[in-house]
Amino acid sequence: VSLTLADLARHADAKLIGDGQYVIHGVGTLQGAAPGSISFLSNSRYRKYLQITQASAVILQEQDLEYCPVNALVVDNPYLAYARIAALFAPRQEVSAGIHHSAIISPSARVDETASIGPLAVIGDDCVVGPRATIGPGCVLEQGVSVGNDTRLVANVTICWGCRIGARGLIHAGVVIGTDGFGLARERDVYIKVPQLGIVDIGDDVEVGANTTIDRGTIENTIIENGVKLDNQIQIGHNVMIGSNTVIVACSAIAGSTVIGKNCTLAGGVGLVGHIELADGVTITGMSMVTKSLNKPGVYSSGTPLSSSEQWHKNAVRFRQLDDMARRLKQLEKELATLKKG
Amino acid sequence: VSLTLADLARHADAKLIGDGQYVIHGVGTLQGAAPGSISFLSNSRYRKYLQITQASAVILQEQDLEYCPVNALVVDNPYLAYARIAALFAPRQEVSAGIHHSAIISPSARVDETASIGPLAVIGDDCVVGPRATIGPGCVLEQGVSVGNDTRLVANVTICWGCRIGARGLIHAGVVIGTDGFGLARERDVYIKVPQLGIVDIGDDVEVGANTTIDRGTIENTIIENGVKLDNQIQIGHNVMIGSNTVIVACSAIAGSTVIGKNCTLAGGVGLVGHIELADGVTITGMSMVTKSLNKPGVYSSGTPLSSSEQWHKNAVRFRQLDDMARRLKQLEKELATLKKG
Amino acid sequence: VSLTLADLARHADAKLIGDGQYVIHGVGTLQGAAPGSISFLSNSRYRKYLQITQASAVILQEQDLEYCPVNALVVDNPYLAYARIAALFAPRQEVSAGIHHSAIISPSARVDETASIGPLAVIGDDCVVGPRATIGPGCVLEQGVSVGNDTRLVANVTICWGCRIGARGLIHAGVVIGTDGFGLARERDVYIKVPQLGIVDIGDDVEVGANTTIDRGTIENTIIENGVKLDNQIQIGHNVMIGSNTVIVACSAIAGSTVIGKNCTLAGGVGLVGHIELADGVTITGMSMVTKSLNKPGVYSSGTPLSSSEQWHKNAVRFRQLDDMARRLKQLEKELATLKKG
Repeated sequence: VSLTLADLARHADAKLIGDGQYVIHGVGTLQGAAPGSISFLSNSRYRKYLQITQASAVILQEQDLEYCPVNALVVDNPYLAYARIAALFAPRQEVSAGIHHSAIISPSARVDETASIGPLAVIGDDCVVGPRATIGPGCVLEQGVSVGNDTRLVANVTICWGCRIGARGLIHAGVVIGTDGFGLARERDVYIKVPQLGIVDIGDDVEVGANTTIDRGTIENTIIENGVKLDNQIQIGHNVMIGSNTVIVACSAIAGSTVIGKNCTLAGGVGLVGHIELADGVTITGMSMVTKSLNKPGVYSSGTPLSSSEQWHKNAVRFRQLDDMARRLKQLEKELATLKKG
Repeated sequence: VSLTLADLARHADAKLIGDGQYVIHGVGTLQGAAPGSISFLSNSRYRKYLQITQASAVILQEQDLEYCPVNALVVDNPYLAYARIAALFAPRQEVSAGIHHSAIISPSARVDETASIGPLAVIGDDCVVGPRATIGPGCVLEQGVSVGNDTRLVANVTICWGCRIGARGLIHAGVVIGTDGFGLARERDVYIKVPQLGIVDIGDDVEVGANTTIDRGTIENTIIENGVKLDNQIQIGHNVMIGSNTVIVACSAIAGSTVIGKNCTLAGGVGLVGHIELADGVTITGMSMVTKSLNKPGVYSSGTPLSSSEQWHKNAVRFRQLDDMARRLKQLEKELATLKKG
Repeated sequence: VSLTLADLARHADAKLIGDGQYVIHGVGTLQGAAPGSISFLSNSRYRKYLQITQASAVILQEQDLEYCPVNALVVDNPYLAYARIAALFAPRQEVSAGIHHSAIISPSARVDETASIGPLAVIGDDCVVGPRATIGPGCVLEQGVSVGNDTRLVANVTICWGCRIGARGLIHAGVVIGTDGFGLARERDVYIKVPQLGIVDIGDDVEVGANTTIDRGTIENTIIENGVKLDNQIQIGHNVMIGSNTVIVACSAIAGSTVIGKNCTLAGGVGLVGHIELADGVTITGMSMVTKSLNKPGVYSSGTPLSSSEQWHKNAVRFRQLDDMARRLKQLEKELATLKKG
């Protein structure tokens, strides 16, 4: 792919400073870019790299322009403009419409003629695959699954019966959507399985990271709204609801029936117990444990800081004495007050 | 599926209050059920929803009966009775006995004629698949695997060589059973792999959640006893033993050679170090870290509570000073005692 | 497999004490070994089992020799010697060179004639599979992937476009290598995907555990150096670099752009934030949270110890008061000092 800087400026809605006819062949970091590439500076902290960059053009903010020794595209949000421009240079997966001869398609499935079904994919009874959707190699759709237009399942994805995925989604390899929720009724010492009858209903423009698992609802549905972005190895329990444009980083786990608002951010390794609600706009920092509903937007944390194991052992032992320490502190305060009076 | 309330009462061993000839077509929540459905009330806290339910019958306890405006099935454990009744209405996966033409079956494998081998499944040498077992699409059984009667592997499951799964099991999509344990012997800076020669031996009535991984034993076996229920994305190390009817919630991890008793409950995200033992009847709350054996049943926890990040930062810094604080507190107590004496 | 003790001693570079013509048929634990087996004692704590072992020979250190009632192989590192010997007795997966008739191979792929491509594997355009490499059943290689000599992909593995795996690797079932990094640029409330254009570049002698996921780089590559050993269900973010012979235990997660040195050990469930660096030789204990760079080798920890839930609740509440407690403690010290002076 080769594009002029003028083309790129138009595409990213940027102000061009420099040679609009210059031809760009790819993207790179400020430190690593080859001549002929375009790079970006989104944090002024890295301004020093402008001096040494081999990039032929840099996307940056007005405030950094004076330090830029090469062509520049000036925008408010360089990372966003970079994302748009990099997409032009991303290699296309060569996917051709049609059904690979090795795929197994139920006669009752409806696959749009512009869709692509990869090698060794399995499409169950009554499935619907929309226009320009791509079902990658080794993917399995159980019966009654629907996949919206322009959605891509990368490879070895499993979608269980009846689940629905909207348009323009991206479901990475190894994802399992619609597996049974973990519902057990106890009968003396033994557990009886509670049938999981709801589906997973995923909106449009949703990305689901590799090996993430999303449980189907017990009676009603598990719901992932439009624009939600899930990273790898996330676990979503049955009947969870995730509001639109919420972002969840890898290895987080949401227990059943919990409701997460819109525009929330959960960092990596966060755990939420079941049956709680998070307001819109809540941010949780990494590895935090959330055991109660959060009614107000804001940034929340839990956990303890790292130290040398030797130091940590000494302090961790004291954690078990905290309540005792707090009581003794109060007692000391009382006694001292008495002493001072007397 | 359509069944009379009298049928359902018989099936759930319930006392019927109302019209036994009323025909029920499905299940629903108290809030969401359509007319013609049956719902349940297992927690009196939700008793208020009885007034507004559109369900035509409700499974409940004697104590809630007087508040129920519709037909009722009275039982001691409504959730258990619901589980039994919902199973009657669960859609059947249409699985027909026999081997799909696209499956790859070793000539030396013994597949019961009532078993079902799905599209693109791979059954290795000397495998045994029992009566009415279902091996779903994309599943891989390496050589010498045995799968008991009525067990189902959903899809894209991998069972490594020699492993054994009992009867009536349910192994969800993406599960890997019998992968090598993480055994490394150090030789100067380099690690040499320790061969993992044991198998995974899984009892009857075991459920394994999506993308869970269970390591094979190093010399002897990894053992999962009857009735164990594992949720999604759990990691079980080599030579772990899990006692019967123990339940482990998603994203927990058990390091090698640890022994968990019967009837234990591990909530989500729990971590156990290796080479410890948990007594029967132990419960661990979510995200706890277990580094020592627990000899007595009971409920155990670790972790820190969530607060605003601003508050959390102030407190977390102090965690590093805890031992120092404890010593200063003791010193103050001494000095104050001296002052009071003097 | 049957080998004399003299053979085994030669193979493990051990001093043989006993009958060199004795024939060994397998390995076992000290407690579980059958006659005709060889066992090992690597920790003198377990010396008592020497008295009861049915093993016909034991690998041990000089210091334990006098307690050994059977044949012995004396070495400095019994576990390492055991690893070498056990490898001789490990059952061989019967893998024959060649391409299974059900595999789907792009005409532009170059598969070495000594490589083995299993049933229902998919090899994309321009892939290169080296000598004696094994691509197991259900594995998917997108376009342009290269797999080095003697590397084995077990089953249902997905390697995304352009990624490179070195020689003598072992990639367990369900692994996903080269999935998109989690790069999002915010545009008002909506997130725009940042193309992930780098690859994952994996060195030689690397093991990757089941269902682990490794993200491709955003612009430059994610790099796993020679001899790295990754356990199951690990998540490696985009542009992470892991130094040679570093070992990471199950369920750990490394956020994007973090650099881990050589010869590090991360225990299970550890989390590292992005954009930090760990020096060579760092060890992190289980479930620790690492939020800052570590410039010196050493052992580091975070977390809180387990207690009964009742005790834990009392102490956890106080965690929220820690800063307040620290201030009050300081105030008391001041006041007491004043009192003592006065």
